[in-house]
Amino acid sequence: MAVISLLTDFGTDDEYVGLVKAVIYGIAPGAVIVDLCHRVEPQDVAGAAFLISSAWRYFPESSVHLVVVDPGVGTERAIIAVKSAGHTFVAPDNGVLTRILDSDPEALIVRVENRAFYRGEVSRTFHGRDIFAPVGAHLFRGVPVDRLGPAVPAGSLRRIEAPSRRIDETEEIVGTVVWVDRFGNLITDIQVDGGYDIEENGETLQIRIGGRTLTGLFRSYGDVEPGRALVVVGSRGTLEIAVNCGSASAELECRRGDPVRIRYGKADRSDDFDKKPVMG
Amino acid sequence: MAVISLLTDFGTDDEYVGLVKAVIYGIAPGAVIVDLCHRVEPQDVAGAAFLISSAWRYFPESSVHLVVVDPGVGTERAIIAVKSAGHTFVAPDNGVLTRILDSDPEALIVRVENRAFYRGEVSRTFHGRDIFAPVGAHLFRGVPVDRLGPAVPAGSLRRIEAPSRRIDETEEIVGTVVWVDRFGNLITDIQVDGGYDIEENGETLQIRIGGRTLTGLFRSYGDVEPGRALVVVGSRGTLEIAVNCGSASAELECRRGDPVRIRYGKADRSDDFDKKPVMG
Amino acid sequence: MAVISLLTDFGTDDEYVGLVKAVIYGIAPGAVIVDLCHRVEPQDVAGAAFLISSAWRYFPESSVHLVVVDPGVGTERAIIAVKSAGHTFVAPDNGVLTRILDSDPEALIVRVENRAFYRGEVSRTFHGRDIFAPVGAHLFRGVPVDRLGPAVPAGSLRRIEAPSRRIDETEEIVGTVVWVDRFGNLITDIQVDGGYDIEENGETLQIRIGGRTLTGLFRSYGDVEPGRALVVVGSRGTLEIAVNCGSASAELECRRGDPVRIRYGKADRSDDFDKKPVMG
Repeated sequence: MAVISLLTDFGTDDEYVGLVKAVIYGIAPGAVIVDLCHRVEPQDVAGAAFLISSAWRYFPESSVHLVVVDPGVGTERAIIAVKSAGHTFVAPDNGVLTRILDSDPEALIVRVENRAFYRGEVSRTFHGRDIFAPVGAHLFRGVPVDRLGPAVPAGSLRRIEAPSRRIDETEEIVGTVVWVDRFGNLITDIQVDGGYDIEENGETLQIRIGGRTLTGLFRSYGDVEPGRALVVVGSRGTLEIAVNCGSASAELECRRGDPVRIRYGKADRSDDFDKKPVMG
Repeated sequence: MAVISLLTDFGTDDEYVGLVKAVIYGIAPGAVIVDLCHRVEPQDVAGAAFLISSAWRYFPESSVHLVVVDPGVGTERAIIAVKSAGHTFVAPDNGVLTRILDSDPEALIVRVENRAFYRGEVSRTFHGRDIFAPVGAHLFRGVPVDRLGPAVPAGSLRRIEAPSRRIDETEEIVGTVVWVDRFGNLITDIQVDGGYDIEENGETLQIRIGGRTLTGLFRSYGDVEPGRALVVVGSRGTLEIAVNCGSASAELECRRGDPVRIRYGKADRSDDFDKKPVMG
Repeated sequence: MAVISLLTDFGTDDEYVGLVKAVIYGIAPGAVIVDLCHRVEPQDVAGAAFLISSAWRYFPESSVHLVVVDPGVGTERAIIAVKSAGHTFVAPDNGVLTRILDSDPEALIVRVENRAFYRGEVSRTFHGRDIFAPVGAHLFRGVPVDRLGPAVPAGSLRRIEAPSRRIDETEEIVGTVVWVDRFGNLITDIQVDGGYDIEENGETLQIRIGGRTLTGLFRSYGDVEPGRALVVVGSRGTLEIAVNCGSASAELECRRGDPVRIRYGKADRSDDFDKKPVMG
């Protein structure tokens, strides 16, 4: 059974999300709606791109994902729908689906412009309610993606900068903190199964972040003493820096967008970070 | 298909909203519940009054709207149910439905006092769970409004001050910032289709807010450069002051309750606000 | 009709709750899910223990309650399922169900270890998604509790410190602020129907908190002037300190974990707190 998921930067302080749902239920009374996340930082297209790329696979097949992080609402930017791996994604053409598209060169992509699937009246400031919601509801009811508008080639779409990870001449992998969660965990975009051969529990793995070096890869937060920082394979399949029972963001003074570098081998200099525990 | 919408000042830090839903599902297992908004400022009756008056029309016909912003919970204040335009609103008699009542002089209004539709045990501090939830569930199941209690005339109800907009001798319209959203947009209660003849894109429109003057009415946030303030017709049909990719609330140092004045014609003095962009 | 309730410390800033729901719907398409609360302070096992113990009774019979406040995720701590009073609770074995277990010595308790009801792949950092969600979905679909794993005796489980209330030699009852809600109300764990013979409206009741004494038990917030502090029987059946139209937490400078003492009789010294109202 399909689900409609909502990923937005609308927050939960206002009635925006409620109105999106009201419109969906008006068109698709039996819809099942899941709030994936509404606390994407306003206009953080890259953060939302990361989130949807790891989250969609946990939803039932045939789910519809509305990704509404849309600084260009009401301007000439297009809205696209992408059918991939049995799921359908609807989003502004601003790069937020870059990772989805990269992972499936065969995806069907259309420009959403058939106004028969919009609300009758379309505002210039709230396409979530007036376009995304009704389009999502119609998709949920079984409207095929190709009825939404003309197919467009992947190459014509806007993209965000390629995920920052890459391999240097120095054999380092460079990544980015793409999300900081409620617990202060620093989620990076460095995938463990991404072909970089990061061995779990690799004792010699070194992570550099915020001017400090962390050594080793642990399996769960509780594997170190409370207050101590560690690196784990997070629930999104990427490296994550955490402090057991504390906030890595606060302790390491790091945040969204900060660079992370990893490599194997002994640290080339002693680092006092590893000698004294960080108190949480 | 009907929906039960919830508009409260309960916030989402506690279990209050969850308990309201638990009680609803116990009585109306098939209910579809939409969180319209729970972040009304505690006891902000006027803000909730604005929100529900613009939001209800996006819900399916026959929906039930529970509006629980209720500083007087447990005192002698009445609870009323209002049937208007095919929707039913349940709220304390504290003025929160003033705009709904103003727009429909024919609305059926009853005082909710038939305890058969309450929970068996009614606390003095949480009528959301003990009265609003079960009453809403019974309405959803088809109980007619007039079974909830005796009809009361509109004139007997509490009202909040009429929306502050009005036309001066100077031909100015005076309004109020009634909501500040997550993005820092300043939402006013000045309706564009409210008979005041505000032309969209009217070049000569001037808005005074926070000691500054903004000129012109734009169609979408992206119509000005990032960081620059503008006035748009917001998604609620009222004038809204925004900063493209920024926070108008922060940039203009304005907030809920601040006055807004609009008029046509040239500003009577030069205003440096329009000469340099506000950086977001 | 049963409901699946979610009580976690996941917050609502991230996609964690959304993924739990995605997994539940994949297994139990007709599930009805209620967010009881996701804003338990990170790792506040005692706060969650209090919340679930007062909340579960408002849910329909046969409901399933997933309580995921789990600092030990991924370590050797067990997960337990408890069947009591027709409801089923699933939680880490960290004491969060202490109050549920105390109230029902006959409860059926099993250790959840049958991996047939887990997701195929189980991470070490997100058991909410990989174990609790699928287990809850299977319970919702009718899987009997005893299929989840072997029965364990109540005595073998971890417990949190007994609720701090107790009767001194001085006939005082000592309790704790176990929750501070959005309104700043200070919720204690002192139950009114707990056999302590606290008379409602007992004029001579005295509450000491934050170095001050409050006298009398009121019925609703509005029974005192705005800005004035009072003690009521809160919606959870325990004593609650509030400020009418204000924040008791801010006014009394109290917070989660602070001690509260009550007794009957005249205060042994005059207390200026009762003579001048606290301004909200």
